[in-house]
Amino acid sequence: MSDLPKCVEFHEEGPREGFQIEPRIYPLTQRAALVEALAETGLKAVQVASFVSPKAVPQMADTEALFAAIKRRPGVRYEAVWLNEQGFHRASATPGVDLSGKISLYTSDAFAKRNNNCTAAEMRDRVLRWLDLYSEAGLTIDRALVMTAFGCNYEGEIAPERPVAELVWAHRACAERGIRLPKVYLADTMGWANPQSVRRLVGMVRDALPDTRVGLHLHDTRGLGPANVLAALEMGVDLFDSSVAGLGGCPFAGHGDSRGAGNICTEDMVFLCHEMGIETGIDLEKLIEAARLAERIIGRPLSGRIMHAGSLSTYRMRRAA
Amino acid sequence: MSDLPKCVEFHEEGPREGFQIEPRIYPLTQRAALVEALAETGLKAVQVASFVSPKAVPQMADTEALFAAIKRRPGVRYEAVWLNEQGFHRASATPGVDLSGKISLYTSDAFAKRNNNCTAAEMRDRVLRWLDLYSEAGLTIDRALVMTAFGCNYEGEIAPERPVAELVWAHRACAERGIRLPKVYLADTMGWANPQSVRRLVGMVRDALPDTRVGLHLHDTRGLGPANVLAALEMGVDLFDSSVAGLGGCPFAGHGDSRGAGNICTEDMVFLCHEMGIETGIDLEKLIEAARLAERIIGRPLSGRIMHAGSLSTYRMRRAA
Repeated sequence: MSDLPKCVEFHEEGPREGFQIEPRIYPLTQRAALVEALAETGLKAVQVASFVSPKAVPQMADTEALFAAIKRRPGVRYEAVWLNEQGFHRASATPGVDLSGKISLYTSDAFAKRNNNCTAAEMRDRVLRWLDLYSEAGLTIDRALVMTAFGCNYEGEIAPERPVAELVWAHRACAERGIRLPKVYLADTMGWANPQSVRRLVGMVRDALPDTRVGLHLHDTRGLGPANVLAALEMGVDLFDSSVAGLGGCPFAGHGDSRGAGNICTEDMVFLCHEMGIETGIDLEKLIEAARLAERIIGRPLSGRIMHAGSLSTYRMRRAA
Repeated sequence: MSDLPKCVEFHEEGPREGFQIEPRIYPLTQRAALVEALAETGLKAVQVASFVSPKAVPQMADTEALFAAIKRRPGVRYEAVWLNEQGFHRASATPGVDLSGKISLYTSDAFAKRNNNCTAAEMRDRVLRWLDLYSEAGLTIDRALVMTAFGCNYEGEIAPERPVAELVWAHRACAERGIRLPKVYLADTMGWANPQSVRRLVGMVRDALPDTRVGLHLHDTRGLGPANVLAALEMGVDLFDSSVAGLGGCPFAGHGDSRGAGNICTEDMVFLCHEMGIETGIDLEKLIEAARLAERIIGRPLSGRIMHAGSLSTYRMRRAA
């Protein structure tokens, strides 16, 4: 327990994850309201939407207009996702988008093929082009993330050496270009991680890249999300991607659908941190209200827990009164 | 990690917890089918139903008939709940009910008042009468459980000394009567536990009762259930109450309703154990099928995760093939 971080940073992905996976398109005003509610909680970064093909993801066709609609709060990074140069140019042309670079790498050719129509090795070549592009644009790099770091539905178990090798490669590629890479992320894209594999892989990345901050992108696909967060906290990990209300997956999707559960739930994990004496800079009550807003917008029960049960603060206050 | 148990025992409470909390009464054949499906998974104990007032809990009015209907599997304990002598006599008169004694204690007068119309001290007196009753009937005692061991919605924080004192008292009361008390349980009745309080309280009970097996009855009210299980496993705890599919609470109950989430989910936690190399004696695939049966019976999405995503075994087999 001695390695628990003093403060943990949550990187909110709910608005993009949540609205992107739903079949219907939600009104822009509702999506803007959720982003604004999240920005009021103390979160430092909110991922708003994607600049991707409106044909492939019609739910994200109006990302420019969404950014224009949001009442912005100083000190909050409003982030977006883009997957190709066209998306990046759209993002660059949109006021208020955090443009710091995020690069992604693969451990699995089978998944890379399906997700990006390339091999893991070819993805490295693309990353090099991105690094050049960001450098030319005078942008910093925020993170390198390695997908399916713990296992892959197409390739099965992933030897831990593979994600470590990808992150070490990314670190070296940045260093060779004089680019600082402040964060590396291990992503459990398909819900294969368990507390032991989290500890092992975080430890291996730390050994390989001792001066780089390690973050985790976890999904709660098979119910181990909170246990995996605890294991990571005990390794001193202080950086997590998460989704308000557990947005990002449909618990009612068919069996065997690996989208069956979203990211770890931001407010439940903030509650975990606070109960263990770890600061987050987040107002839990405001975050619970944002989760309830998300549920009202989506229009069906979401998987977050504390948003339904309420926090302990009212019970504690009632007793103290 | 070195204190992980080699084998963990799950005590299934889904059928009672699940059907008791639902407003509608489900057909007896469906409830029997769920119990039978659970008994096929390798679970050693399944809590079938309650012998309680049919006026108070009409969902459990036909418990005798339910026990008569179940096709029994050798080696499985079919358990029931009773709260007074009348219920105990009904249970005693019903073939096939596991009659080993379970005693409950309170940390909180306010909750004891609401739940049993007595103080925590008065509950001790009642427990003494139960011990006499079980002794006269020639029955063993299975467990003493202390409710709201981690916190109480009515009394707020509960000092850890209080649940420990109740369990030490129960142990002594048994010893003075020549009764063996093999297990003591800490119950997080209202979802106040966190990994640190689990570790602290388990450690204190171990220190006070070094020869007694410690079990946990956890609810996933605020999303910390799996993290609390991990903390307990790392303390060597090898005994958990749980509910298939996370039955036992309605995720759609109003905000602030502490019934908003059920017990920890059996199959998700069995998956956690198996992934960490801990045996459970349970066939995870059969248990997932039982969870899906529970969902079909209840007729709405339940909170279990792996039942929707599927286990990793098919992905691993596909890769190995």
